[in-house]
Amino acid sequence: MSKKVYVLLAEGFELIEAMTPVDVLRRGGAEVVTVSITDNREVTSAQKVPVISDTTLKEKDITDGDMIILPGGYPGYVNLGESQEVGKVLKYYVENNKFVGAICGAPTVLAKNEVFLGKELTCHSSVVEEMKGYNYNGSKAFTDGNLITGMGAGLALNFAFALAEKLLDNETILKVKKRSEEHTSE
Amino acid sequence: MSKKVYVLLAEGFELIEAMTPVDVLRRGGAEVVTVSITDNREVTSAQKVPVISDTTLKEKDITDGDMIILPGGYPGYVNLGESQEVGKVLKYYVENNKFVGAICGAPTVLAKNEVFLGKELTCHSSVVEEMKGYNYNGSKAFTDGNLITGMGAGLALNFAFALAEKLLDNETILKVKKRSEEHTSE
Repeated sequence: MSKKVYVLLAEGFELIEAMTPVDVLRRGGAEVVTVSITDNREVTSAQKVPVISDTTLKEKDITDGDMIILPGGYPGYVNLGESQEVGKVLKYYVENNKFVGAICGAPTVLAKNEVFLGKELTCHSSVVEEMKGYNYNGSKAFTDGNLITGMGAGLALNFAFALAEKLLDNETILKVKKRSEEHTSE
Repeated sequence: MSKKVYVLLAEGFELIEAMTPVDVLRRGGAEVVTVSITDNREVTSAQKVPVISDTTLKEKDITDGDMIILPGGYPGYVNLGESQEVGKVLKYYVENNKFVGAICGAPTVLAKNEVFLGKELTCHSSVVEEMKGYNYNGSKAFTDGNLITGMGAGLALNFAFALAEKLLDNETILKVKKRSEEHTSE
């Protein structure tokens, strides 16, 4: 059965950070669902591209997934961090040993909800100070147990393939890399 | 005055290839307008993400731009190649010494319209045979005069920064790279 992934979209999300994982994981056959955290399916990215999500957090119970992904982007990651509903879902995923991906400013959502404390991770250099209680290591993308983190938009592909490693088999990942002409080494 | 860029979106466009340039160029202060080539502003990407364009090719005369960008994605690039309106705009840009960017399968749109013949370029490995009359060089991204080409989704960032070099000053490009945590070398 294919793996199920929810990508949480707040107003001001970073488009590359959100959509590179959507693209890579859908190419690899995962069931990826974009979820607006507002009442509206239409969500506008930090760089002003309106995207229509597959569903909203109000419409859909998303506890059945294998992974949730929290994109960065300003003020997207702040909006994710301020949402009680996102906090609830995040805690459910952590407590039930599911995967959580967070990139750029979004690792601060972990800190706000005090989950994954003590984990080794990466994030955007501008939010490192907010990550007290975690071990920031400055990687492009990093996996510690069920937590996968990424540094920023320019490294969204590294993040996407780190997520893919948790959900897809190696052969599929190599196929996706080849077909996207992905040449960069880790 | 900021540079003006039109990104042409057909049904089945590759989201990363289209949106990485939008993101990078908007971060750098260019005026980037997404243009649906259908009658509908809503266009759905190859990996099934619906995006709302800023305008449509019917609504808006786009001959005033400094650059047009043709994203790949299947069947997006085929749809671009089959559109007479896109062909007209493309020829106008070529004849008026404006910039044209094309990535992945989209360089075939040049071939279909017989523009930029003889230029050195790159494209997705699967469409090289359709590029007779051009000098394919297998670069990640490549610039020959006013033509900027890219290889594929996994190299969209290389393509985006190659486009940026034509439109933004070096200081701005460095800032955008730094803020996106872009670490990869060319």
